[in-house]
Amino acid sequence: MRRVRIDLAYDGTDFAGWQLQARGRTIQGTVEEALSRLDGARLVRVHAAGRTDAGVHARGQVAHADVRTARGDAELGYALHRLLPPDVRPLALRTVRADFDARRDALGKCYVYRLDLSRYGDPLLRRYALHCARPLDLEAVSAALRLLPGRRDWSGFAAAGCAVSDRVRELRVAELVRRGLDEALFRFAADGFLTHMVRNLVGTLLEIGRGRLAVQRVHEILASGDRRLAGPTAPARGLCLERVAYADENEEVTEDGSGLGDGGRGLRR
Amino acid sequence: MRRVRIDLAYDGTDFAGWQLQARGRTIQGTVEEALSRLDGARLVRVHAAGRTDAGVHARGQVAHADVRTARGDAELGYALHRLLPPDVRPLALRTVRADFDARRDALGKCYVYRLDLSRYGDPLLRRYALHCARPLDLEAVSAALRLLPGRRDWSGFAAAGCAVSDRVRELRVAELVRRGLDEALFRFAADGFLTHMVRNLVGTLLEIGRGRLAVQRVHEILASGDRRLAGPTAPARGLCLERVAYADENEEVTEDGSGLGDGGRGLRR
Repeated sequence: MRRVRIDLAYDGTDFAGWQLQARGRTIQGTVEEALSRLDGARLVRVHAAGRTDAGVHARGQVAHADVRTARGDAELGYALHRLLPPDVRPLALRTVRADFDARRDALGKCYVYRLDLSRYGDPLLRRYALHCARPLDLEAVSAALRLLPGRRDWSGFAAAGCAVSDRVRELRVAELVRRGLDEALFRFAADGFLTHMVRNLVGTLLEIGRGRLAVQRVHEILASGDRRLAGPTAPARGLCLERVAYADENEEVTEDGSGLGDGGRGLRR
Repeated sequence: MRRVRIDLAYDGTDFAGWQLQARGRTIQGTVEEALSRLDGARLVRVHAAGRTDAGVHARGQVAHADVRTARGDAELGYALHRLLPPDVRPLALRTVRADFDARRDALGKCYVYRLDLSRYGDPLLRRYALHCARPLDLEAVSAALRLLPGRRDWSGFAAAGCAVSDRVRELRVAELVRRGLDEALFRFAADGFLTHMVRNLVGTLLEIGRGRLAVQRVHEILASGDRRLAGPTAPARGLCLERVAYADENEEVTEDGSGLGDGGRGLRR
């Protein structure tokens, strides 16, 4: 028996999210089924760093699993690649220390939320970006983004049903990156995120960009922790788990020392 | 009655190509149906600059149609945007001179073919790029690309069923552009293309990149006009009609004077 770390990318469009469910196609279920077939029909449990919601994509999800197979890492990775459907791809597979835990050992995560700013919406982006038909006041959005980084209680941006009691997280990066005339990306990096936190941040920032909420509202949401003051939850399809960072990797450290520099990955496309 | 020019983008994945067919969802049929509804249920014919194959995408297809509606261009464009499905998007709609012909007046076209060079294939690119699992010899591909530009007979790269008798075309641009570590784009600009010409060029270039054909083979195909010497037709999904150029536009002229400079469009994403 050995523990393997599996890095995964997936198109979340046709999945009911990461987590195994009684009904519905899930990423966890799909990966477990493939890995179980490769491990002598034994049930292999797969644990992810972040349980992404239905419709959310990943380009750098990390998971761990215990396997008995005699196959080496390269062979197992290749066999997994052959068995998985085209919307879930293994990026890497390697044996790690037996106590590696993809979720607990994660030092931080980076999410990207993609906006299609073209007039009528780019059909090639429709599964992976939110189309914002009307012009956004990007100055106001940037001003609001500057208020966000820091170690604080994020209750005001957590889902109503968020079961976690400690809602203090350190947001290290909150930025908007333009890509050409018709695209923009929100990037958020933190030591952890609450349920729906990124989508609630984006929903609020878009309301600010549309002039429906004032930049100041961010202060009020943070101070009060009142979810009702924030904007709606932005649709899942624009969101992508870009990267999970661990201590024992040879991380490129960003200028702010966050250790979540994406080495160009977040901006590759 | 007036003639309108409609610029279109589409995700070709779920279409049986541009051209109307007895069976199967087509882009022409979809646009004609929407435009007919907006023009008093009168049948409106829509003519495209290039009749893209099943599965081929477009980010800059151009079409023309004659309409009777009293709606102005902006209103008609917006109404069309509301009626069309999310995988076909109007980019612009404007009244043009009555004898404008999207196909005959086109001075040139630019196609892009996208390659996913990542190890296991990026699930977010699978509808829009061809995954090349094994490393390609990009030096050899570039050497072969340099042999292509010029005014010549392209019979060796035309589909077996190509019905056109004059197969002389001027290929103005043939290049490979790297994008990050895991992506590359072929770009081809010409005054016109024969059936399957881009996909046959790409199929041959990939065989050269895999070491299965010599760079010299390009000379032999061009000299003999023998399709059997070329590589297989590359899959449709990587191909995108990026732009159609007309004389009466205020074109940005590229350094080589081709008039097919893409103003950053081909490289925006």
